[in-house]
Amino acid sequence: MRIVTFFLVTVATMAGLVTFGTPAQDQAGGQSGAPYVIEIPDGYRDWRWVSSAHEAGNLNSIGAVLGNDAAISAYREGKLPFPDGTIIAAVHFRIVPSEENNKVFGQAQSFVPGAPTNIQFMVKDSTKYAATGGWGFAHFQDGKPAEAAFMKSCFPCHEKAKGSDYVFTRYAR
Amino acid sequence: MRIVTFFLVTVATMAGLVTFGTPAQDQAGGQSGAPYVIEIPDGYRDWRWVSSAHEAGNLNSIGAVLGNDAAISAYREGKLPFPDGTIIAAVHFRIVPSEENNKVFGQAQSFVPGAPTNIQFMVKDSTKYAATGGWGFAHFQDGKPAEAAFMKSCFPCHEKAKGSDYVFTRYAR
Repeated sequence: MRIVTFFLVTVATMAGLVTFGTPAQDQAGGQSGAPYVIEIPDGYRDWRWVSSAHEAGNLNSIGAVLGNDAAISAYREGKLPFPDGTIIAAVHFRIVPSEENNKVFGQAQSFVPGAPTNIQFMVKDSTKYAATGGWGFAHFQDGKPAEAAFMKSCFPCHEKAKGSDYVFTRYAR
Repeated sequence: MRIVTFFLVTVATMAGLVTFGTPAQDQAGGQSGAPYVIEIPDGYRDWRWVSSAHEAGNLNSIGAVLGNDAAISAYREGKLPFPDGTIIAAVHFRIVPSEENNKVFGQAQSFVPGAPTNIQFMVKDSTKYAATGGWGFAHFQDGKPAEAAFMKSCFPCHEKAKGSDYVFTRYAR
């Protein structure tokens, strides 16, 4: 059952905001080199907006990608690879119709974030995460980090975006 | 032709992020009381993220709502009405499939911002804009403010959201 859930989450993630593959655990000090981050980075909800995205199909998600200062500077300057210290966040929600808005518009057209599904992070540390393109991955659901088994799918997926330093999301301008 | 364009933009706006009706011109000093803002607020792209939205149908848009510090504080504290000084921005784009992402996922499911369509603002000044619920409205396309005739539709639409201080967008959490 857990495996099924993880699989769904993985697909949702990959579909979701298509920002990261997935993440897992970073035993700060322990299991050195595991490209998983298990602490939610401080203040991410105050970071600047990179882009929004919608995933159709079973996922049916909407969300936003936010970046810390290092991420935003690199994005704006088109600098690749992203520098160490970069953290990119992807916040995902179920996409739901806004009945309130649709009433005003007189037709069903407005879709907004519903229940939160997960929050993901990519953390750049080219030494610590050298084996995964310099990125550590994180995935939280209800505030809890995903397990290592789940996180293993992150890098193989992001590896396909090697040309943009393993990051799928573009800066919206 | 211009009228047709404006009409489309209005519909797009109302559909778009459903954040504001529409905006137009604020002859700072002139035409006092006109609830139209014709200058793009400084630094809005650095503001914090309030929410994302997708409009289906002809508009087919995706975007984000951002808020300045006053807006974010009020949103987070659930304070209504928004205080003077609040500015809310809505940035809209055509929603387009991401062929790059879909190739990775093996199916057409990923939608991202394409060409920018318009940027809108709501500026709170309960004295200056007393006649329109305390809000001045702005709408920019290619960096240019919409004309007054276009802006007239903003408030009548936002008036329907009187219960949330004329603001449609909710804070995503």
